[in-house]
Amino acid sequence: MTIPELDDVHPAWLPPEAFRAVGSRRTLVAGDGTLADTVRAEVAHACARHGGALDGPHDLVITLSPQEGLGDEDFVLSRQDGVTTVAAGGQAGLLYGFFAVVRLGEAAFEGERAAEHHRPALRRRMLDHWDNIDVHPVMGQVERGYAGGSIFWRDGVPHDDLTRVRAYGRLLAASGVNAVAINNVNVHATEARLLTDRLGEVAAIAGALRPYGIRVHLSVNFASPIALGGLPTADPLDAGVREWWARTTERVYAAIPDFGGYVVKADSEGQPGPFAYGRSHADGANTLADALAPYEGVVHWRAFVYDHRQDWRDRSTDRARAAHDHFAPLDGRFRDNAILQVKYGPMDFQVREPVSPVIAAMPGTRLAVEFQVTQEYTGQQRHVCYLGPLWSEVLGFRPWGPDGATVAGLAVNGGLVAVSNVGDDPYWTGHPLAQANLYAFGRLAWAPDLDPGAVLDEWIGLTFAATGDREPLRRALRELMDGSWHTYERYTAPLGVGFMVRPGHHYGPDVDGYEYTPWGTYHFADRDGVGVDRTRASGTGFTGQYPRPWSEVYESLADCPDELLLFFHHVPYEHVLRDGTTVIQHIYDTHFAGAEQAAGLREKWEKIDGLVAPDLHARVRERLDEQVRSAEEWRDQVNTYFLRKSGVPDAHGRRIH
Amino acid sequence: MTIPELDDVHPAWLPPEAFRAVGSRRTLVAGDGTLADTVRAEVAHACARHGGALDGPHDLVITLSPQEGLGDEDFVLSRQDGVTTVAAGGQAGLLYGFFAVVRLGEAAFEGERAAEHHRPALRRRMLDHWDNIDVHPVMGQVERGYAGGSIFWRDGVPHDDLTRVRAYGRLLAASGVNAVAINNVNVHATEARLLTDRLGEVAAIAGALRPYGIRVHLSVNFASPIALGGLPTADPLDAGVREWWARTTERVYAAIPDFGGYVVKADSEGQPGPFAYGRSHADGANTLADALAPYEGVVHWRAFVYDHRQDWRDRSTDRARAAHDHFAPLDGRFRDNAILQVKYGPMDFQVREPVSPVIAAMPGTRLAVEFQVTQEYTGQQRHVCYLGPLWSEVLGFRPWGPDGATVAGLAVNGGLVAVSNVGDDPYWTGHPLAQANLYAFGRLAWAPDLDPGAVLDEWIGLTFAATGDREPLRRALRELMDGSWHTYERYTAPLGVGFMVRPGHHYGPDVDGYEYTPWGTYHFADRDGVGVDRTRASGTGFTGQYPRPWSEVYESLADCPDELLLFFHHVPYEHVLRDGTTVIQHIYDTHFAGAEQAAGLREKWEKIDGLVAPDLHARVRERLDEQVRSAEEWRDQVNTYFLRKSGVPDAHGRRIH
Repeated sequence: MTIPELDDVHPAWLPPEAFRAVGSRRTLVAGDGTLADTVRAEVAHACARHGGALDGPHDLVITLSPQEGLGDEDFVLSRQDGVTTVAAGGQAGLLYGFFAVVRLGEAAFEGERAAEHHRPALRRRMLDHWDNIDVHPVMGQVERGYAGGSIFWRDGVPHDDLTRVRAYGRLLAASGVNAVAINNVNVHATEARLLTDRLGEVAAIAGALRPYGIRVHLSVNFASPIALGGLPTADPLDAGVREWWARTTERVYAAIPDFGGYVVKADSEGQPGPFAYGRSHADGANTLADALAPYEGVVHWRAFVYDHRQDWRDRSTDRARAAHDHFAPLDGRFRDNAILQVKYGPMDFQVREPVSPVIAAMPGTRLAVEFQVTQEYTGQQRHVCYLGPLWSEVLGFRPWGPDGATVAGLAVNGGLVAVSNVGDDPYWTGHPLAQANLYAFGRLAWAPDLDPGAVLDEWIGLTFAATGDREPLRRALRELMDGSWHTYERYTAPLGVGFMVRPGHHYGPDVDGYEYTPWGTYHFADRDGVGVDRTRASGTGFTGQYPRPWSEVYESLADCPDELLLFFHHVPYEHVLRDGTTVIQHIYDTHFAGAEQAAGLREKWEKIDGLVAPDLHARVRERLDEQVRSAEEWRDQVNTYFLRKSGVPDAHGRRIH
Repeated sequence: MTIPELDDVHPAWLPPEAFRAVGSRRTLVAGDGTLADTVRAEVAHACARHGGALDGPHDLVITLSPQEGLGDEDFVLSRQDGVTTVAAGGQAGLLYGFFAVVRLGEAAFEGERAAEHHRPALRRRMLDHWDNIDVHPVMGQVERGYAGGSIFWRDGVPHDDLTRVRAYGRLLAASGVNAVAINNVNVHATEARLLTDRLGEVAAIAGALRPYGIRVHLSVNFASPIALGGLPTADPLDAGVREWWARTTERVYAAIPDFGGYVVKADSEGQPGPFAYGRSHADGANTLADALAPYEGVVHWRAFVYDHRQDWRDRSTDRARAAHDHFAPLDGRFRDNAILQVKYGPMDFQVREPVSPVIAAMPGTRLAVEFQVTQEYTGQQRHVCYLGPLWSEVLGFRPWGPDGATVAGLAVNGGLVAVSNVGDDPYWTGHPLAQANLYAFGRLAWAPDLDPGAVLDEWIGLTFAATGDREPLRRALRELMDGSWHTYERYTAPLGVGFMVRPGHHYGPDVDGYEYTPWGTYHFADRDGVGVDRTRASGTGFTGQYPRPWSEVYESLADCPDELLLFFHHVPYEHVLRDGTTVIQHIYDTHFAGAEQAAGLREKWEKIDGLVAPDLHARVRERLDEQVRSAEEWRDQVNTYFLRKSGVPDAHGRRIH
């Protein structure tokens, strides 16, 4: 194992300077195995740069120390008598302990430190790539990708050089991620073959990621037995089908012994699934789970099942209800190695949604919660939108109220999954500041109770480690990024109502863009009011999918949080919010404020000029120009739309077109 | 010349049975030349089928008879002493005279017939193909094509077999068309090369169309001197550029001596043009005209120039004004062989627009009027929409009032042009009944004062010539097709306001789809009213681009025709139309009626079952199903949109969602 030569790859949060503290010490790495070798190579690499050494007397000891209660990924960090010690429960613990020391920097070598037991809160911390091998005519190579092409394939074949994949694995390990699904959940014909005759490509990628403790998963097409196996059916209860999955999976593990498992999007947006055979999603998931079980693999079965051919005229059908309606009755019927992967909200990665009620409805099922690091609905990596605070809110949400479990707690055995935002863009993520989202995802998956602002500080500290006086930069970036999610929310769809984006590509405003479509994403604005009545009393009854207290809180117009008001209620424009403003005035106010704040971001960035690399500064500035333009467009379209509809003038007489 | 073997090509309005009358007679074709040979071959072919002969004594004489006042395309038709005579002024007259006899059928051989001088009202009757050689990633191979791929190219190369092109030429000759521009006015890189190294492909197509009197034109890219010639500029006044066009054109004529000329879309929707060099469109057109002049070629210069990056917030900018603003000041500055090609309406082929004021503003310029046979905005050949009545209205419109010239009269020296609706679809046009539009275009271009209902009868008579008792079929098809334009108008955008279509592909409703875009196509609906104020008094002043009386008629809310009300005026929903209904009630009424009539079309078609070929019946039925579905979608989206906005209930209490 050699440390990747990163000269051609942007180091993101692992620039050479980030290793100064550890690299200038004398370090012992004790233990054998792939990951121990990785850590040893990392230390050697850092020492070569910064003057440290691997021989004694040691300032830092990183050692395998298997013991009761210490999981493979766990480590105990302590400092005593001038020696900092990472005692790892297993190979992976060595790696995570090492990167913990890197993150601490000099602080890891100061004073005494009582033993701290570090363990990941969630077992599996996974990024899903929506990468295709081919360039899809509509979706491009990376579906919902805003950072160039795939890091795995180009021109229909794997990249010759997997340096970037190795570098990616290293970045992920440093943030805490331990699994990657490498291909799009919409599995097209070419990509389906990764499961069979193109399996070698998966093995090569697994080989590149393995030194950093990352297991590879594969999205598979539910109809593979037909498309790849030539069987007449994909019925999950058909013996031939089950046999086909068993034999196919056997071959996968022969090639990749630490293969993670499958990801399946079935009966969703046109993908095939068990419904075609009158089978349940438990039947579908279990057939794949059974094939994977002998090898301790898992199937991630996505709960994103809804009618995407809904009739907009039918106001009783509610897409928000769909996942719960489909899956809650199946609780307890999934195998132990089948993980139900649930988007955090009941709709689709909007800037503001309530937490999905499915998460509280499956006590007898392993659950993974799905986030979207790629900014499909949050500015597509042209807008600064730091998502840590959003994820933190979701992870800390307690479906049964203050005394109940958190979302993070409910996902302990399943894990946390997110759609990745990286591509072959020089900065990895298109918008350089969007790297922070990737970092924060890993960190929050490891420790959901971390303060997202502190995570942002970590990211800034590592990424800009070479900056002399980091404090002005840190302060400026905190100001710029920490509230950026709320800024984005202000100038886009108001009060939790969602969407209002251009159909198809989902960038930029189009208030009625989805209003008369079959996609189930409506706001029902008329001349009197706006919002979706999802109450039991008079609406779709969606609020009833929540346990108390939230079923009651959301049901009640008086109690429903303002930021979700239009998600749950259809209200008149004159409805008064908690701050005393009316809904219509709130729409105007937030849109004027949001666009103004976007302009403020650009001003803040200008002040950073000189503190960061010129090319990075220029790239961000160019994106901020677009963000300011887009925010103004959102402001004007939303305000004009609602002025035309409501006829209510802005209380402050500002210009609405 | 042999008659194309049409076994694999749908005969459209020239089925074998259509030639029964002429083919069962004894006919003399007198004259030499390509078109005389064509007519002779046609007669021989018809006789071989139907028992007639070319030797005497003759029932029909088709003879060249050049004389003063008889143009090359003209012919005199008469019948005396049992002999029908076509005396043609030139080669083309033989062809048109022959097809006139075919159209008449038995009637051509009955009784006596005083000499009728037939001459085309418009010199050039031209179809523009928006075909690409390659498949464009967004627009497909045929831009705005709804009948499959191109009849000229497939897979990036010309069709091996030009049978279909020859059959197309024959159909066009039988309807009166004499020119075809073979490629898209948006000239992409591959297609630009048709002018130079791919010229052989143009020559081959010209060769296939020549026997039917059709000259080939080519769309060229204004920047060709740069892209193809390697010059540093395409400035039309640059000597090198002029020289390049001259030499290039010389080579074109060396390959195709009867080449028709160029078609240019410049400074329009992203196409390059003279503005880049600070030159006028007259400068641009004249440079190409000068290159073509030695060979009597013409350049068709499109007047479709407007700002497609308009700010929707700016209500003073009006796309409808653009062509007049750009071109009226240039009147008199175009060469004699430069033809300004003007869309019939000021916007873009909507189902209802006023006639473009440019047509009356260019007395010193040769004008061609442009129609759209391809149904981009009129149902995309999934809806029955017979456009003869629309074109007839436009051609008969008199910009200076009852005593002034008609549009057809103003286009005499330029001609009539239309975007073709054919492709490699087995029925030519996707929707079999859309063939009638192609036929009607040719016939109305030849004789604009024909009754479009009579033209429809002709088309039915020819197309279904094999039907035993044609009267029930004719009556049913007349009922179905004759009013279909108005039916389509009823269920789509109301009262001339236009658009309300899905952006991009332009199919199906999206009331606000273009409302906040840069395309300049708005309806400005708010809670109080709808429509575009284009008056001089309070709006964009567009009405002032018309001469009297129309400038006054359109300016006046009292006098403006109801069907154009929202094109010219922004009115409250309560505004009362001439029939006593309010605008809002009219919207509801027409949309309910239009959808109901669409359903009625399907019922009428069911009654025809058994009278037409089963495959054709099935194809039309399938399209009618879609039309009914789509019409209901239009009805519901438009009605719901306006109910939500206006709050005015339907007076008849019908269901609006």
